[in-house]
Amino acid sequence: MKVLIVGANGQIGKHLVTYMQDHPTLEAVAMIRDEAQADFFKKMNVQTVIANLEDDTGTIAKAAAGCDAIVFTAGSGPHTGKDKTLLVDLDGAVKTIEAAKLANIERYIMISSFDTTRAAIQNASESFAPYVVAKHYADEWLRATDLKYTIIHPGLLTNDEPTGKVTAATTVERDEVPRADIAKVILASLENDASIHKEFQVVRGETAVDTAIQEL
Amino acid sequence: MKVLIVGANGQIGKHLVTYMQDHPTLEAVAMIRDEAQADFFKKMNVQTVIANLEDDTGTIAKAAAGCDAIVFTAGSGPHTGKDKTLLVDLDGAVKTIEAAKLANIERYIMISSFDTTRAAIQNASESFAPYVVAKHYADEWLRATDLKYTIIHPGLLTNDEPTGKVTAATTVERDEVPRADIAKVILASLENDASIHKEFQVVRGETAVDTAIQEL
Repeated sequence: MKVLIVGANGQIGKHLVTYMQDHPTLEAVAMIRDEAQADFFKKMNVQTVIANLEDDTGTIAKAAAGCDAIVFTAGSGPHTGKDKTLLVDLDGAVKTIEAAKLANIERYIMISSFDTTRAAIQNASESFAPYVVAKHYADEWLRATDLKYTIIHPGLLTNDEPTGKVTAATTVERDEVPRADIAKVILASLENDASIHKEFQVVRGETAVDTAIQEL
Repeated sequence: MKVLIVGANGQIGKHLVTYMQDHPTLEAVAMIRDEAQADFFKKMNVQTVIANLEDDTGTIAKAAAGCDAIVFTAGSGPHTGKDKTLLVDLDGAVKTIEAAKLANIERYIMISSFDTTRAAIQNASESFAPYVVAKHYADEWLRATDLKYTIIHPGLLTNDEPTGKVTAATTVERDEVPRADIAKVILASLENDASIHKEFQVVRGETAVDTAIQEL
């Protein structure tokens, strides 16, 4: 399965691409903003395509052509300007969803935020609320499609070493989770159709990632 | 017909409420943020309800209870912080749409931006694009509902005196239009069901507003 990684140059993206090297049935295509980001991937012989989430849908669809799945793990993050929140986290995400349709890609995995419900918007701090709004509408857009989607809602992301174990369910208690383990959750989701049309929160835990996905 | 005006204290809102005084079949309910905005409306014996677009949907639905229509003419404007663009122009608008459903209000008139198409997002300047994104998704949300909606896309708004004449069609050449004439277009839309499930751009022109709406 050929997988376009949107946000390949991010921390989760780099873990994901690296782990995919050991999964011969999966082939990563790293979507990067410019050639300057290419070195990391070229060293691993990973194909790169240059496209930007502010490009139009057609350009992104061209970058995705030939892939069987899209993983969206890009993010302006909650601390960038709110203009980027709208243009990247919401509209950029929606363009990759529309690009999937244009390129006849059925499988789509979205890395969302821990809680993107309407209640979460209302309860968010003033500075965090716009980010939650953006992720809320991107998730809503994806749910309304016919794509075989998975929506992953990670807890508080850390740079801790991966444990390969998590707790995953529709709702779980908010907790930390290593970015590297989220990459493993993405991998397991790509490899297990039990994750299709599922949406779950995930934090550090005691269940092996593959088992956690199987039991969703 | 009892009409909740969201953004009553804005410039278009104030024109609209004022003109409604001469239309005995229409009764305005001015949604305002706080008591300090009430004077203008009390002097005209117009009912006010206090609610905020950052309130939750239930609170807005309560403010709308008993009304037959909602007019959304609120706006953070393109020049406020982009956090407010997300929270007011997108999420605030969506909450009023959801509030309409909760309060069993079928009729909804949205004052959008001149061009909220995907092409307009791509062509917008960096500073304007987030606002177009927000209006794009609010319009999309409304289109996907079962509400009897009208989406009005005004040209460049001015404070010129109203002429009572406009050009209105699916697409028209970009031009100015007085805010006061947009208020007249809203009035005519409320009074003429020819506007239901229509969406049109409107600029200054030579056609009487009532005729322009009838001929949509």
